[in-house]
Amino acid sequence: MTVSDPRQIVAAKRDGHTLAAEEVEAFIEGYTRGEIEDALASAFLMACLLRGMDGAETLALTRALIASGDTVRFVGLDRPTVDKHSTGGVADGVTLVFAPLAAALGLAVAKLSGRGLGHTGGTLDKLESIPGLRTDLKPEAMTRQVREVGCAVAAQSPRLVPADGRLYALRDATATVPSIPLIAASVMSKKLAVETDLILLDVKAGAGAFMKSPEDAEALAEACLGLARGWQRQARVAVTDMEQPLGDAVGNALDVVEAVEVLTGVHRGRLRELAVAFAARGLSVTSGRGLDAAAREAERALDDGSALERFRAMIEAQGGDPRVVDDPVGVLPRAPVVMSIEADRAGTLARMATEDIGLASGALGAGRMHKGDPIDPSVGIVVRCKIGDRLDVGEPIGEVHARDDDDAREAARRVLDALVMREGTVQPPPLVHTWLE
Amino acid sequence: MTVSDPRQIVAAKRDGHTLAAEEVEAFIEGYTRGEIEDALASAFLMACLLRGMDGAETLALTRALIASGDTVRFVGLDRPTVDKHSTGGVADGVTLVFAPLAAALGLAVAKLSGRGLGHTGGTLDKLESIPGLRTDLKPEAMTRQVREVGCAVAAQSPRLVPADGRLYALRDATATVPSIPLIAASVMSKKLAVETDLILLDVKAGAGAFMKSPEDAEALAEACLGLARGWQRQARVAVTDMEQPLGDAVGNALDVVEAVEVLTGVHRGRLRELAVAFAARGLSVTSGRGLDAAAREAERALDDGSALERFRAMIEAQGGDPRVVDDPVGVLPRAPVVMSIEADRAGTLARMATEDIGLASGALGAGRMHKGDPIDPSVGIVVRCKIGDRLDVGEPIGEVHARDDDDAREAARRVLDALVMREGTVQPPPLVHTWLE
Repeated sequence: MTVSDPRQIVAAKRDGHTLAAEEVEAFIEGYTRGEIEDALASAFLMACLLRGMDGAETLALTRALIASGDTVRFVGLDRPTVDKHSTGGVADGVTLVFAPLAAALGLAVAKLSGRGLGHTGGTLDKLESIPGLRTDLKPEAMTRQVREVGCAVAAQSPRLVPADGRLYALRDATATVPSIPLIAASVMSKKLAVETDLILLDVKAGAGAFMKSPEDAEALAEACLGLARGWQRQARVAVTDMEQPLGDAVGNALDVVEAVEVLTGVHRGRLRELAVAFAARGLSVTSGRGLDAAAREAERALDDGSALERFRAMIEAQGGDPRVVDDPVGVLPRAPVVMSIEADRAGTLARMATEDIGLASGALGAGRMHKGDPIDPSVGIVVRCKIGDRLDVGEPIGEVHARDDDDAREAARRVLDALVMREGTVQPPPLVHTWLE
Repeated sequence: MTVSDPRQIVAAKRDGHTLAAEEVEAFIEGYTRGEIEDALASAFLMACLLRGMDGAETLALTRALIASGDTVRFVGLDRPTVDKHSTGGVADGVTLVFAPLAAALGLAVAKLSGRGLGHTGGTLDKLESIPGLRTDLKPEAMTRQVREVGCAVAAQSPRLVPADGRLYALRDATATVPSIPLIAASVMSKKLAVETDLILLDVKAGAGAFMKSPEDAEALAEACLGLARGWQRQARVAVTDMEQPLGDAVGNALDVVEAVEVLTGVHRGRLRELAVAFAARGLSVTSGRGLDAAAREAERALDDGSALERFRAMIEAQGGDPRVVDDPVGVLPRAPVVMSIEADRAGTLARMATEDIGLASGALGAGRMHKGDPIDPSVGIVVRCKIGDRLDVGEPIGEVHARDDDDAREAARRVLDALVMREGTVQPPPLVHTWLE
């Protein structure tokens, strides 16, 4: 379709009309080719945000995004391939555990990650805190690794959905981020551009997530699922809790330490629980096994060390120092200052300003505010208390890993400020709100 | 007010909040200073368009636009100063008649016009079809002319509300034009930046106007009036009909010919009627005279030649050939081809696709589609039939003035296509829907 005047497409959306798929695609293609300027595109995005987009429009947008670049196919794998993606939260290191765990269960995990922005690094940054580890795998190397090891986590090529990167930067600059169809298209375009047998999506809801309520998160989950359906791809989507940090570690190397603790079966808690839930779901969907049986298999793979061995093999295959699984603290970079955080009030932990904890870690140097910023893998925060815990004054609840004392004190203060205490008992939030399929 | 992150202002409007005046002003000032990019500004405009702006927000926008440039004051005039502006339509040459007519009634008309875009030229272009006439008057020269002649029509300086020009270009490029608050701020900023005792505003409604319904036009009129009130300026606003061309001439030199015919008292009809209505309103408001008495004075000034004398004096003062008032057709540029338009169907004229007639004239060369395009003063269309007229096949209803036969034939066809006929009698639309104050 050629568009003689793309303003007419914007005007139609502005006036509340539903756009034809060809119109959405022509607009995005025009933008990608540089024929449509940022100003017209941002007016379009604001109109889409305020007028909404239906399933067919969102699918057309997704299709146009995918068409802007290459698609990826892993050839010659004899196991079902599973992709897993989280919309992002605080202490959300599930992928580090999920990938080797799913591999131990006989699944193939070929995960391509973007680098993104955030208070703490993404999965790639966390993995790269392991000395020597590389994430710039070529497709053939990645396929070989998945065939041999069962899992690989690599940086996505800049040719994967390049229009999404441009469009997201524009949305970020023009206050047009919070639109469920736009978010769904952005998330799913990158998943659908990579051919896998199953997409597992974790949509976070709560104080530490973009979606603050489970209802909004469920709407986003539904939109993503609709796109998978429209693309004839199998997907399962969980809405999970982000009212508090998922794991204890909020950083990069610290998250690897925690992942190793989960993979050795030592660390119990919500991070393990969610990794098991996703691995079990993946196994169940691809093998037809019952969910309970699949979950028991996943628990066993953590407890018997087979998941840990897959992690070791993955790190080795990607050039990282495999001793990290035996002595993570010894191998990983360490911050010069480690300061204990102690509760300054007594009571029951009722609520956590989770995002503030993430931002406190970011301020230490664990995240990046601008594309290309370096991150410091060693710094971060560990918070061991969870909602519902009874705390006493002076009780150690975690520690700050920082470059200097001032940074550490400031971060500890921010963590304490983020804790809302009250008297009596407090019911912790459920970990998984719902699974959609 | 300094804005640390102008996206927050856009986000607030996006989310349906009412902005503080300081926020609107800070945003527009940031845009004017080049600190805010087009993309963010167009997202803001789309959010304003879809969420609306209340009176205080619109006033703040207007204030910021005015603050972007100079304001104009005419010092030392002993008569009340009146400005008159139309939102634009087809064959809308009222200003050409109004200015000398109001001058003849003892008012001072110092009108600054923008050049704008449209199917036919604006008032400046029409006047400039008079050989020698200049519209680039300096403020002092303009004041002197108004003191001596009673009226002057000049090009507004690029320093008058420069932000409006930039913002309008952005709106045009981003499908964010049709917003009543944005239009009102654009129109009124240029009126309020020039100090006069009374603003007369003509908001057009109908097939040949931007506002298609009298209701929308009235909403725009109310918004403009609210801005005048907020600026403590006296204004009267009429909503008038644009279901058919106001005068007969749709061009530039052709409009001057028609204006002379009205000023000599020869030409009766809607153009005369509306010029009288505006002049009478201006006289009545500034002198306290009754409206009927004022209208009688205005009629007299047309019939006794005193308005024509003011026109002659104005043209002379601005360097134009004053013989145009005695022999307009002889003095003004003439198109090489003049082709008669004859009705191709019989019936009563029920409706006119008025904008199409304007566009047909524009296609002949009478208007400009892009800023800075030249226009041909000689070409255009004269359509003498009005809604309610009974037409016979072959009856002459006007003529096309064109550069060649092909152009002329095409324009004549477009005019005939624009006429909707039916049997029986048809009530012509009222000329003035309402006056607001």
